[in-house]
Amino acid sequence: MAVLITGIGELTTNDPELGKLRDAALVLDGETVAWAGPAAQAPDADERVDVEGRAVLPGWVDSHTHLVFAGDRTAEFEARMAGQAYAAGGIAVTVDATRAASDEQLAANLRRHVEEAAAQGTTCLETKTGYGLTVADEARSARIAGEVADEVTFLGAHLVPPGADAESYVDLVCGEMLDAVAPHVRWADVFCETGAFDEAQSARVLKAAAERGLGLRVHGNQLGEGPGVRLAVELDAASVDHCTYLSDADVEALASSNTVATVLPACDLSTRQSLAPARRLLDAGATVALASNANPGSSYTTSMAFCVTTAVLQMRMTVDEAVWSATAGGARALRRDDFGYLRPGARADVHVLDAPSTTHLAYRPGVPLTHAVWRKGAKLR
Amino acid sequence: MAVLITGIGELTTNDPELGKLRDAALVLDGETVAWAGPAAQAPDADERVDVEGRAVLPGWVDSHTHLVFAGDRTAEFEARMAGQAYAAGGIAVTVDATRAASDEQLAANLRRHVEEAAAQGTTCLETKTGYGLTVADEARSARIAGEVADEVTFLGAHLVPPGADAESYVDLVCGEMLDAVAPHVRWADVFCETGAFDEAQSARVLKAAAERGLGLRVHGNQLGEGPGVRLAVELDAASVDHCTYLSDADVEALASSNTVATVLPACDLSTRQSLAPARRLLDAGATVALASNANPGSSYTTSMAFCVTTAVLQMRMTVDEAVWSATAGGARALRRDDFGYLRPGARADVHVLDAPSTTHLAYRPGVPLTHAVWRKGAKLR
Ligand SMILES: [Zn+2]
Ligand SMILES: [Zn+2]
Repeated sequence: MAVLITGIGELTTNDPELGKLRDAALVLDGETVAWAGPAAQAPDADERVDVEGRAVLPGWVDSHTHLVFAGDRTAEFEARMAGQAYAAGGIAVTVDATRAASDEQLAANLRRHVEEAAAQGTTCLETKTGYGLTVADEARSARIAGEVADEVTFLGAHLVPPGADAESYVDLVCGEMLDAVAPHVRWADVFCETGAFDEAQSARVLKAAAERGLGLRVHGNQLGEGPGVRLAVELDAASVDHCTYLSDADVEALASSNTVATVLPACDLSTRQSLAPARRLLDAGATVALASNANPGSSYTTSMAFCVTTAVLQMRMTVDEAVWSATAGGARALRRDDFGYLRPGARADVHVLDAPSTTHLAYRPGVPLTHAVWRKGAKLR
Repeated sequence: MAVLITGIGELTTNDPELGKLRDAALVLDGETVAWAGPAAQAPDADERVDVEGRAVLPGWVDSHTHLVFAGDRTAEFEARMAGQAYAAGGIAVTVDATRAASDEQLAANLRRHVEEAAAQGTTCLETKTGYGLTVADEARSARIAGEVADEVTFLGAHLVPPGADAESYVDLVCGEMLDAVAPHVRWADVFCETGAFDEAQSARVLKAAAERGLGLRVHGNQLGEGPGVRLAVELDAASVDHCTYLSDADVEALASSNTVATVLPACDLSTRQSLAPARRLLDAGATVALASNANPGSSYTTSMAFCVTTAVLQMRMTVDEAVWSATAGGARALRRDDFGYLRPGARADVHVLDAPSTTHLAYRPGVPLTHAVWRKGAKLR
């Protein structure tokens, strides 16, 4: 059944040819966008929805979350806000709770967060394993994630489990764990950071994953400058995420690569770090994506709007850049072009704002602006 | 009719004796809180609402808004985000549109924003005149504001109208305009800043208002250090608002006064200024309120949650401090103690969060957490 969405005050297509349209319309046919263009030229459809001048954009593409988890870390957040430093060891708390949870509990918690995100306009979501850290727990995390998320990433190399030897653990990740998880995932990721995995260990994990045909992602340069960005670019990772501390060489490497720099402003703020230098990356010609990094430790938000607001108000991205980075940019970071766009053939993932333009995402900080959402052509809200 | 709200996981009363309660209940009787305490000791009531472990706090008290306006300033915001400096002259755009609007249009726009705020938990709201700047337009703005807002402030001294002579305009404000507006308002305010009204002009306005029995408020120290804070303290203003740039003497003066320092983080961010030094004020012993400064130019948000989130993540206020400042602190800035608290006798203004604790207001940036709102005992949402 075809649905005509008309009365669109501003239509962000992210398509270079179509651009941004005023007084536009959109036709959804099943799970797909069938038509986008000026309202006056819109074809007929079975159903007609008038959005009365509101802005319409592609649903958010949140390309970085960690939502296969159980347990609570509110106390750790409270401690951090009381002035204690961010301890990566906090992840172990979530690992214990995740291992102890049933499949049903993990799936329900994941679904609850995905629905919370969808109610705020997120129609495509990547999520990662990484709170299992045993062969069985990583494999079931990947399987559960695959039932809900659009893209799943194996992050066995999130943390060396307490008590384990790092090199032996990397052997496990690169061997038996990867074999067990690979059927459920398209991506592999590694936390390449002092205190987690060093350059050689990270390279081993990524190369082993590439040999199994997985695409690569890297957590890098979150807590300081390091080898993460360089390694990601060398291995043609789809994305290197965080990028809070970058050398000039890192910026140049990103600018002349196919690797997206995914910045995570809600994480930077929630850990009271500097905001990633998105302006510097854009000015150098790098491709920037915005993502939530939703996880119970360092960034417990599903709000892509908050990321866009922060990117504009505090990171000096323009509204158009920030909106692109949180939609098509996220898709690019997942090497997809079937969502993140509103053009014929794209997935019918539609976000209607209670505002006449996307500018209001930054102009009206904190005001919930999601008016309606379609995901794969189904109206969620 | 009495309503028992039970199953409260965390009850923020803001009352020094009652404190913060776990596993609590609250009884609303008509427009008033009749009882607050442990769930096990709760009295009977006509109706019972189980909030299933959620956090409950007083509704936000937004002590600083400018919502009697018409017109649109999206383009000015876009220009500023593109790198142009904040021009106070932008106010004149709103003045023209406000003068041209009918009473009905102004009232409808005000109500729409008040309802938007209420849907986010704001149950008490101050609003100001200041986009009329003629005797007739200021008087009607005050009258319209009084029909909707809990507290109304006369801000004829917002801007010298284009083409007017400053001293003559101050004469008008202190004389005929004040006479016309005074019956509709409890407060008078002045924009004491380079480019608006200087110290002598500000003092004239405030003293004339005090002579008519109005309480005083000051816009001060927004764009740089200046006489605003000192003047506010000298004249025992209830609040001095912005406080972005403060000398040590300003901080000390506030700490030893009854004048509240109201900080406006959404405005600081929306104008890409520094955030006000709330931590420094608190450490010195000053009383701090948080408010939205909702207005179409420098801070077009009604989200008190965004202000609280920013205060914790970026201004180093604790969650408890930020929540107090956005509820009881706002009430203090309005010299009220009948709202901003959940204790017997207080106004039944109740905010239920979709979270187990107020910590989540900072822990979950951008996620809309308002689950239910009662204002004067009436359930709004
Ligand atoms: Zn991450
Ligand atoms: Zn103001």
